Amino acid sequence: MIKQAVIVAAGLGSRLKEKTVSMPKGFLELGGIAIVEWSVQKLLACGVEHIIIGTGYHAEAYDELAKKYPAIQTALSADYETTSSMATLSVCAPYVSGDFLLLESDLIYDSIGLTVLCNDIHENVILASGATNSGDEVYLEPQPSLKGEGSPLAAADGSFLKALSKNKAELASTYGELVGISKLSPSLLSAMCAYYEKKRAELPKLDYEHAIMACTASNPVFIRKIEYYAWREIDDESHLEMAQNEILPRIQENESLRQIRREVLLNPGPATTSDSVKYAQVCADICPREKEFGDVMKWICKELTAIVADPSEYETVFFGGSGTAADEVMISSCVPETGHILVVDNGSYGERLAKIAAVYKINHTVFKSSTYEKIDLTALENEFKTGKYTHLGIVYHETTTGLLNPLDVICPLAKKYNMVTIVDAVSIYAGMPMNLSKLGIDFMASTSNKNIQGMAGVGFVICKKSELEKTKSIPMRNYYLNLYDQYAHFSKTGQTRFTPPVQTLYALRQAILETKQETVEKRWQRYTDCWRILVDAVKKFNLKMLVKEEDQSHLITAIFDPETPKYSFESLHDLARQHGFTIYPGKLGNINTFRIANIGDIKPHEMQRFTEVLKSYLESIK
Amino acid sequence: MIKQAVIVAAGLGSRLKEKTVSMPKGFLELGGIAIVEWSVQKLLACGVEHIIIGTGYHAEAYDELAKKYPAIQTALSADYETTSSMATLSVCAPYVSGDFLLLESDLIYDSIGLTVLCNDIHENVILASGATNSGDEVYLEPQPSLKGEGSPLAAADGSFLKALSKNKAELASTYGELVGISKLSPSLLSAMCAYYEKKRAELPKLDYEHAIMACTASNPVFIRKIEYYAWREIDDESHLEMAQNEILPRIQENESLRQIRREVLLNPGPATTSDSVKYAQVCADICPREKEFGDVMKWICKELTAIVADPSEYETVFFGGSGTAADEVMISSCVPETGHILVVDNGSYGERLAKIAAVYKINHTVFKSSTYEKIDLTALENEFKTGKYTHLGIVYHETTTGLLNPLDVICPLAKKYNMVTIVDAVSIYAGMPMNLSKLGIDFMASTSNKNIQGMAGVGFVICKKSELEKTKSIPMRNYYLNLYDQYAHFSKTGQTRFTPPVQTLYALRQAILETKQETVEKRWQRYTDCWRILVDAVKKFNLKMLVKEEDQSHLITAIFDPETPKYSFESLHDLARQHGFTIYPGKLGNINTFRIANIGDIKPHEMQRFTEVLKSYLESIK
Repeated sequence: MIKQAVIVAAGLGSRLKEKTVSMPKGFLELGGIAIVEWSVQKLLACGVEHIIIGTGYHAEAYDELAKKYPAIQTALSADYETTSSMATLSVCAPYVSGDFLLLESDLIYDSIGLTVLCNDIHENVILASGATNSGDEVYLEPQPSLKGEGSPLAAADGSFLKALSKNKAELASTYGELVGISKLSPSLLSAMCAYYEKKRAELPKLDYEHAIMACTASNPVFIRKIEYYAWREIDDESHLEMAQNEILPRIQENESLRQIRREVLLNPGPATTSDSVKYAQVCADICPREKEFGDVMKWICKELTAIVADPSEYETVFFGGSGTAADEVMISSCVPETGHILVVDNGSYGERLAKIAAVYKINHTVFKSSTYEKIDLTALENEFKTGKYTHLGIVYHETTTGLLNPLDVICPLAKKYNMVTIVDAVSIYAGMPMNLSKLGIDFMASTSNKNIQGMAGVGFVICKKSELEKTKSIPMRNYYLNLYDQYAHFSKTGQTRFTPPVQTLYALRQAILETKQETVEKRWQRYTDCWRILVDAVKKFNLKMLVKEEDQSHLITAIFDPETPKYSFESLHDLARQHGFTIYPGKLGNINTFRIANIGDIKPHEMQRFTEVLKSYLESIK
Repeated sequence: MIKQAVIVAAGLGSRLKEKTVSMPKGFLELGGIAIVEWSVQKLLACGVEHIIIGTGYHAEAYDELAKKYPAIQTALSADYETTSSMATLSVCAPYVSGDFLLLESDLIYDSIGLTVLCNDIHENVILASGATNSGDEVYLEPQPSLKGEGSPLAAADGSFLKALSKNKAELASTYGELVGISKLSPSLLSAMCAYYEKKRAELPKLDYEHAIMACTASNPVFIRKIEYYAWREIDDESHLEMAQNEILPRIQENESLRQIRREVLLNPGPATTSDSVKYAQVCADICPREKEFGDVMKWICKELTAIVADPSEYETVFFGGSGTAADEVMISSCVPETGHILVVDNGSYGERLAKIAAVYKINHTVFKSSTYEKIDLTALENEFKTGKYTHLGIVYHETTTGLLNPLDVICPLAKKYNMVTIVDAVSIYAGMPMNLSKLGIDFMASTSNKNIQGMAGVGFVICKKSELEKTKSIPMRNYYLNLYDQYAHFSKTGQTRFTPPVQTLYALRQAILETKQETVEKRWQRYTDCWRILVDAVKKFNLKMLVKEEDQSHLITAIFDPETPKYSFESLHDLARQHGFTIYPGKLGNINTFRIANIGDIKPHEMQRFTEVLKSYLESIK
């Protein structure tokens, strides 16, 4: 798994004349977007966490870009005017900690090149293409003697690098042209830096590719050639024109072929996902007991925690299973035999918490409240005051109705009465900014397939560590869903007790990266924008909502069925589906509603389009 | 989801002269394989379940092919000499039940074309390419007036079809060339067949594409153009040469770019998977409560059952979770409060069954047996004879050691004593032929990520229906893992109680299709071949195995650590990993072993290569 990339971007780009007077080459635009930004987006989609850009000429442009992409870090090559790409790479090297992708800043390319490098079994690989006739080719000479001999990795097609040159006549034979995208190991990088350190006085303008060349004896470099690769380096105006007219259309077509049909899920989870999350599931097979995968799982736990809490105070424990499985983990693992849990039931999910407590014969009392009106806080506090309860079980956001319970008031109140707080945050986590410590939440459950925008199959509990430790002494009520055992085993071994859903976890990793890129604050804003479009339309169409606007979550809206015999949920559902939208029926026995969720990777213009479908449906049943 | 394909393959191929005297065009070989077989393999990899080949000229060749691919059904167009592709399609039509792919038999093509059609939102789509200069082009005329107007699906790029012709002059404008791969709806197909029926006397030699043309008024057909598509129809010798020299290399390169790095997992699951199973996870987002997905789940349950039992007698119930979750489902859901389960413990997994029973305070007795020697059947029967036990819990194949317990003797014996049999078949199911009814197994658990060769995340229990019904009255001991509730809800609604792992289920569907293609009998043979290579090498290298050869499962082999202080599991593991193999430590507290599993999508030559790695390691520690 490749987690880092370095883009060398310090150069003057002087061959592009006035086009690069006030900006670096990477900011040339193609298709309305700077070429370096295309590159950044492709790297992020490919699962890269950290992009180090080596800057020089007009470094401020990259520093500005870094504000938009939290994954970017810039490193300034102060001597950029008198040096070249190896000097730039040297200033980036201290931030590199594992295998990484190395790219030039002035490239446009088909993203498949990144996939191919990440999938290559060799440690050091440079990407090559067939003939470009660009006039600026760097030719590669293969090392036929190395091919297939001695190397355990001989099975792969291709050759190891012997030499490279812009002058074909210097080479005994050629095998492709250098693209300017490579996958390198830290060992090769440090050899390259050491070599440059030694040669710097003599060869200040050394290119990184010549530094690679100088180190191949100890670090063999494989050439991965894609004969028909769509790419272009942009060094002068003729390149720019060719890129625009010939190469970009090919790249766009290739990438569009790999796009997945867009279906917008307006059901309350699983939510719509990005193509990059979908493709993150496709990776080399791995045994989940390998340390490499253990590190992925640890990273996931830490990052899931960091979204809502300080990882030094809270800890995430995950399970193969759904959000309900995570709810069951909490209820069955956190209430001791001598405990008594008060469960607030104002919808199907609160009811479910109580049902789980009942199945395990856990001492519990149900506090019933309206499914669509605010909880009576005085009545609830009066219940707290009885002093009977050791634990509170409550749903943060009732998926049934879109009612947001005021946990910012309720949990601190429960804390006042010394109750441990157990919260189903399944459909609110990562959709709205929150801080568990401030809220006074001890345990919260959620799942991979709602606002975090990953795939279904992982449920998790975020636990206050001090409370988690106390559950150690509670006798196990089940085996697979036991919280403390799962936590203790993983902490000790870096492995899960039982086979985890490997590919779903890889997708979750990508979903977390995309959440960090967007930030929960901006996601909440995007969700709210979509909700606002929906609510405005609903009011305009004279439909009524179940929950008062100010009590709604902005994530799920329950709408009363239109009052005409011509209405049927199925006909509305089927029309929406034809237009690429999936909607969901209500879940209240006695009140007829349908629900529109606006969680997941959906855009305001899509919600706008949905309201038009809704409008046309309503007109058809008038 | 496209489940069916039709290949029209009746034609004479007369332009290819002596090359097609004794066989149809589809059997021309490129790269050592018949072009129609390429096509079949690409369709299967794309998730197609059923391929109907319309045959005529040398039909026997296709009938022979059908023996190799259980997914193929042939349909003979008796009048093939006097008709054309529409007559062939007509004989296939009765077997088509949903949206389907229609292909000509004489094509080579990049498989991405199939993906693109399956992903297209339009009901009827024909694939088009840029200029081929093949001399045999069918040009397409777009219907610009339809583009973007009135259609709810206007967002997609492209145009609807207005006309087609081999004569460019007949068309007002052109938008690509017909490839000969389409996605059609049953409604268009039936319109085409009706049209042909009416016109047959007048136009017996009607091509299917002209029948499409005649029906576009009621069934608009979208043109999906891939400008740089790599494909060729092979009508004459010049086409064949061009296909061989120019097109096939491009297709092979494109497809190789999408291949995933091969890592061979020799750990006892998750097992190695095919690329097509990996890619099956990448699909349009869907709400799992849609009927379409319910049908996928029903199909999965029926097919999982059919591998080991008659679906009228047995039923599969699945859960989001691991194999252990499925074990817990059985133990916690199937033993009534008045029951008493005898658990055979001869390895970690038997011990786990007992542990689960203990957690739930289920009345249970443990029958301990050696971890590496046969169970003493007399002693076991003596225990049965006590008459104390209502249930037997046993592991079929101890993953800890590779010991195969003789369930063909033990379960019928248990039945003699009226015991309900609960079997952990996690690492044997779908790896060895078995019949639950004959074996006398009432409940068996397994998982998606072992011999069925899918992804981790789904555990399932295959239940004898009559016994399953009896569990209805057992009070729930947990919520998420309750067998009867899960079964009853799914039977009633076609939906799971809780969000299922959608993408893992799509991968499981593909894995089942590939299991049906291979057959369990041949899979067992392949596994045995791999095991034989391993065991022969192990003996040659003077290593000792824990379990006697005749008691081994052929799936997992536990090998004693080499007796030299130079040996460490880590060093062997790391060397193997460098060569693309993952191995696994032993799991017996007191005996030092390592384990080699040979389950999953692995080939004998790969096991051969592993034995060479093992050999080189053993030499290095001599």
